[in-house]
Amino acid sequence: MPVFSEYAKAFTQHLPPDDRRELLARLDDFDEQRIADMDAGHVDYVILSQSAPGMQAEPDARLAQRLATENNDFLAERIAQHPRRFGGFAHLAMHDPAQAARELERTVRDYGFKGALINGHTCGRYYDDRAYDEFWARAEALDAPIYLHPANFAEVPALLQPVPVLQGATFGWSVETGGHALRLLFGGVFDRFPGLKLVLGHMGEFLPFMRWRFDSRFAAYPHGVTLRQPPSAYFRSNIYITTAGVCSAPTLLGAIGEMGADNVLFSVDYPYESTADACAFIDAAPLDAATRAQVCHGNARRLFKL
Amino acid sequence: MPVFSEYAKAFTQHLPPDDRRELLARLDDFDEQRIADMDAGHVDYVILSQSAPGMQAEPDARLAQRLATENNDFLAERIAQHPRRFGGFAHLAMHDPAQAARELERTVRDYGFKGALINGHTCGRYYDDRAYDEFWARAEALDAPIYLHPANFAEVPALLQPVPVLQGATFGWSVETGGHALRLLFGGVFDRFPGLKLVLGHMGEFLPFMRWRFDSRFAAYPHGVTLRQPPSAYFRSNIYITTAGVCSAPTLLGAIGEMGADNVLFSVDYPYESTADACAFIDAAPLDAATRAQVCHGNARRLFKL
Repeated sequence: MPVFSEYAKAFTQHLPPDDRRELLARLDDFDEQRIADMDAGHVDYVILSQSAPGMQAEPDARLAQRLATENNDFLAERIAQHPRRFGGFAHLAMHDPAQAARELERTVRDYGFKGALINGHTCGRYYDDRAYDEFWARAEALDAPIYLHPANFAEVPALLQPVPVLQGATFGWSVETGGHALRLLFGGVFDRFPGLKLVLGHMGEFLPFMRWRFDSRFAAYPHGVTLRQPPSAYFRSNIYITTAGVCSAPTLLGAIGEMGADNVLFSVDYPYESTADACAFIDAAPLDAATRAQVCHGNARRLFKL
Repeated sequence: MPVFSEYAKAFTQHLPPDDRRELLARLDDFDEQRIADMDAGHVDYVILSQSAPGMQAEPDARLAQRLATENNDFLAERIAQHPRRFGGFAHLAMHDPAQAARELERTVRDYGFKGALINGHTCGRYYDDRAYDEFWARAEALDAPIYLHPANFAEVPALLQPVPVLQGATFGWSVETGGHALRLLFGGVFDRFPGLKLVLGHMGEFLPFMRWRFDSRFAAYPHGVTLRQPPSAYFRSNIYITTAGVCSAPTLLGAIGEMGADNVLFSVDYPYESTADACAFIDAAPLDAATRAQVCHGNARRLFKL
């Protein structure tokens, strides 16, 4: 899908040329280095997705829908070459919630996709908008987890405007994606669709550590919002996190302590981090055998029905 | 200091009337309920500070400087009534860095204040501005730790604009204050003033959990910024955190694992949380005796020279 390289430019343009060339080659490879790295790290199975920002950054809705559909057809072909090693997440143009719901259903039904990965807002539109209830209803009905992956800010906050180094992956993405996830939570999406499963990478964009404070401060300052559960409870009932992009044992243990071992999944932010680094981290993490089994495969098997 | 109640309005206006009355009474009390609560929780000593936003929200620089000075004189009188129970943080108008440096020095020298607590930006101005190097130099020379406390956003990010419930203490403050602290770090303040000690409340505004990712993503996307150490290292060399406002054991253990037990201090977000709740949390936290001693008093004694 060479056209997708165009959309990836914003995410690679600051890299040194050699690093960028290697990264783009790894993104395009499905059969060689990717599988060799999995083998070396004893990774049996991965679910593949279109890299950010993809169609979430395409303003033309019809073009975005066409390319997302082509992407899904392409991914289905690639994973069919290695069905025991690869699964797929749908790439969805989110411009039209009804069309996104249909495309999710098509890819789950026809290709066995495990859910969808969405790269944040679509041109500044967030999915707590009631118009997206139709999409969330379908995801719930299909029992298809939705992975909310970072995007660049639709509008860079004044706080970070003068400091480009903080606007992206180093800090800003977690603010943007964590804030988006909280808009869903405090917007009542999980109350309206209690079976919905949302997945967050990057150790849950660090939200698990804020659970106690969410409850404490929301109780003091509800601003007219009512929820069926304390905010912290949704981090067990509806939110799952992955370790992708955060290879630190104390933070992993903290997240497991906050969310329970059922809701934390090992994952590799490939190719933005190396499979070897991520595997070395999880192999060395001080987890008991039962927790390790859950984090490394049991939770993924259950959540994605592998 | 009844005039300060005016500045506190923004932080209390959404509370139910009874809660608000109780909160304001507790803020005004230095001799009764405050000490009774400390006694009940076996808290020997606390360092008091002006509640947010104080003079950081006052646009008139001269008025702010006068009121901050009056505040410091007032606080010195109050703590003199209970010198074995109370210490003070200076309240500083930060409009003029040279004046702020002088007032910090005066209060440390004349009143034995332990440092200063600053409620975030001053009317949208952040302290990575090189004009503040004069202030940071004085804080370093005095070995006076600076506690950076939350403020409301100078400009609410578009991401949070439609969701007031996320703009303040529940989420936005951590973004604002964490982002401000990162502006100092990535702006090289700790490289220029390596002896500077910055204190963050609310479990470090959750930045400790991002240490690994700061290093990983900053290495990939430095945006022309150079630092003497990996970003994570400043969380041991220059940054101290307190538990104020976050009473969750897994998160505490994660923070200690990330920063080391030397840099984490027990504190109570009084009167915004109850001393009883905070003490029950720390008493129940699964800390070994040496770590407990550091977190509960050793670190504070060392950092603030008690």
